[in-house]
Amino acid sequence: MTPDRVLAIDLAAHIGERVSVAGWLHRRRELKSVTFLIIRDRTGLTQVVLPASATCGTGERVPDLGEETVVLVSGVVTASSQAPGGAEITEPELTPLSAPADPPPFDLYRPAMTAALPTVLDHAPVTLRHPRLRAGLLISAASVAGFRAALDARGFTEIQTPKIVGSATESGANVFAIDYFGQPAYLAQSPQFYKQAMIGVFERVYETGPVFRAEPHDTARHLAEYASLDAEFGFITDHYDVMAMLRDVLAGMVAAVRERAIWATNTLDLTLPEVPDRIPELHFADAQELIASSAAWDPRGEPDLSPADERWLGEWAAREHGSDLLFVTGYPMVKRPFYTHPDPERPEYSRSFDLLFRGMELVTGGQRLHQYGDYLAALAARGDDPARYEGYLQAFRHGMPPHGGFAIGLERWTARLTGAANIREVTMFPRDLHRLSP
Amino acid sequence: MTPDRVLAIDLAAHIGERVSVAGWLHRRRELKSVTFLIIRDRTGLTQVVLPASATCGTGERVPDLGEETVVLVSGVVTASSQAPGGAEITEPELTPLSAPADPPPFDLYRPAMTAALPTVLDHAPVTLRHPRLRAGLLISAASVAGFRAALDARGFTEIQTPKIVGSATESGANVFAIDYFGQPAYLAQSPQFYKQAMIGVFERVYETGPVFRAEPHDTARHLAEYASLDAEFGFITDHYDVMAMLRDVLAGMVAAVRERAIWATNTLDLTLPEVPDRIPELHFADAQELIASSAAWDPRGEPDLSPADERWLGEWAAREHGSDLLFVTGYPMVKRPFYTHPDPERPEYSRSFDLLFRGMELVTGGQRLHQYGDYLAALAARGDDPARYEGYLQAFRHGMPPHGGFAIGLERWTARLTGAANIREVTMFPRDLHRLSP
Repeated sequence: MTPDRVLAIDLAAHIGERVSVAGWLHRRRELKSVTFLIIRDRTGLTQVVLPASATCGTGERVPDLGEETVVLVSGVVTASSQAPGGAEITEPELTPLSAPADPPPFDLYRPAMTAALPTVLDHAPVTLRHPRLRAGLLISAASVAGFRAALDARGFTEIQTPKIVGSATESGANVFAIDYFGQPAYLAQSPQFYKQAMIGVFERVYETGPVFRAEPHDTARHLAEYASLDAEFGFITDHYDVMAMLRDVLAGMVAAVRERAIWATNTLDLTLPEVPDRIPELHFADAQELIASSAAWDPRGEPDLSPADERWLGEWAAREHGSDLLFVTGYPMVKRPFYTHPDPERPEYSRSFDLLFRGMELVTGGQRLHQYGDYLAALAARGDDPARYEGYLQAFRHGMPPHGGFAIGLERWTARLTGAANIREVTMFPRDLHRLSP
Repeated sequence: MTPDRVLAIDLAAHIGERVSVAGWLHRRRELKSVTFLIIRDRTGLTQVVLPASATCGTGERVPDLGEETVVLVSGVVTASSQAPGGAEITEPELTPLSAPADPPPFDLYRPAMTAALPTVLDHAPVTLRHPRLRAGLLISAASVAGFRAALDARGFTEIQTPKIVGSATESGANVFAIDYFGQPAYLAQSPQFYKQAMIGVFERVYETGPVFRAEPHDTARHLAEYASLDAEFGFITDHYDVMAMLRDVLAGMVAAVRERAIWATNTLDLTLPEVPDRIPELHFADAQELIASSAAWDPRGEPDLSPADERWLGEWAAREHGSDLLFVTGYPMVKRPFYTHPDPERPEYSRSFDLLFRGMELVTGGQRLHQYGDYLAALAARGDDPARYEGYLQAFRHGMPPHGGFAIGLERWTARLTGAANIREVTMFPRDLHRLSP
């Protein structure tokens, strides 16, 4: 490693010592008699103080080094109340390790981002270095860690299921087609079928992996490829067990962000949501009644909630329950996939739910069918051919317990948590209708 | 949840109580006056004792229930030195939750697998329930957890990079082509370019995700889709820093298997490898000299090691160093990708390495180029067009530190660890030249 390198976060513990720091030249300020450099590493910023005329070991004038130059600096750690972390580097010797060929497309050191989204995305390998974008990605990473930790603690096993599938997962349309050694194949829209099959093996499973949607949506909340946090588990009574598990997982995700992403939440000045012990809930039919009786429109008779319905319900939950989160249960069977378990009392409604987070659908889940005969009947009722689902149905031919699960879209979660207006702001290298690079 | 369900592993703590257990009917044994049922849940096996003529709540004769029936059993926990875990269920009331339509393709309760691999793979949703296959997958899951924990503890950030890419990652051939909204696109062969770019953002990154190889290999160790455990980090001196990090990560993976997969290692009767503090190493040229002087063939002049060379070196490392692991360093540049850093002293050799595990290549890694100009020169020398790599090269246009990394093939790792003859035995739903389902 770069010898004896001290990270920004540890600098103040070395006051009086000669140490090395290394990182990117985040910012330069040349004053009349002195030059300040701010060096960025993975833990924070370090201030370096030089005489105005200082040169590098290589002979260049230090103030001429471009931003994003990678530098190694050795010097003396000196207490300074004005420096980040309370210490700065004085008497520095500076060695550039790698010089930029161009300046960044906008100033990475300014707290606000001054570029339009297309510029940001076109130059992601450098623009993601901006603290606000970096912070969003760190919150995303902490959320994934929290998801896994919550499920590991509850007896779940992590799985990896195939992304190349021989037949479309849930619907014939909106899949990406692949040439698979001369055979037609598709990219998996979700791990749904495989995570259900694996309940027969492990009872409780989760997967954090990419899913692929060829839907030609061009909105601020759709991506063609995104990270899905999937969980599925057996021996449930009904969808309320799934909702209780999801509640605990969300609490674990928020706790992980709070503990693991302190710099990021501070940088974005975030208020993290409280996850109540019991998230408020409304049946789909009651939600429509409530909107009809109080809002300016009447959604009754619609088989799904509109974005306006969801926003209204989000405001209602905040006002009536002080909650950022709201479960809507019992969506009509007609809009749910064939593996959805109906409500035995009201078979036109399902044992499924959506979780709204600040008025936007974030998670879908529910109880699934588990009897082989019920699958055959459900496929027949939709005029679908069981032969298309042969691999999937095998699990149910050999004994499966009542089970259910949910899927959280990671980028949507992070966008809502950070208040990003566009999901692309919290995605490393987004893929959409128009974007395939970088 | 299934009310008051007690898991097999906790049964002995409830002696004298009436409890419920639930799981799959793993095995039935009907004797003259008594029937034994073995119920399998995610934690182990529970023995249930019934009179020979017992019937279920639903009226069927218990001994007629098929294996893999999902059952709920309430009964009294009774100490029994002959039952698994030292306790069994007596005075049971048995409710089938889900009946199988067919018997499994082979007896899942027998310790050895009695079916050929194609049968096993064709019926994966049920055959993966066999303890030996289940154990392999648990070892795989524990290994991934160990990989992440080791890197989390060392300041790495988890990333998700796109699997749909606009141009081929490392070589033009052997990629799966996709129709991406009418544009040509490909499945990523590795996250290599993206993980390097993200060093500019986080310095240290890892990813655990699928990679796709359209190579028409039909062997026991190749898959068309596999899980790659990728790590990459900056501010290194050379590839020895990468090798030291890999050593620590492997030690963490073995420790995680030891701690988290006790049932699985016992089931497979595994001896886990020791990861020495310093893994023995040989330069590529010295490895060839050694083989030439001691084996029956002369590999000198070859630009790569053959499987026979690797086996010989694996035996040599075991014999001379008592090690299952051996680093071979300095592979010829001619066989390494263009981003490989040459050895400045001997530029025909690289600062790269392979790690052999029990005589088979398991990990490839090394130092990468980090100067923009070096990338342009390396591409020019290979007659490749820098415009094809525009997105990738952006990172290097804006300052990148010396860096390197490695990639571990998860299924190969698990196969070697468990002694599986074929990588498909430790893959949930393998994808190869001939297999696209289930």
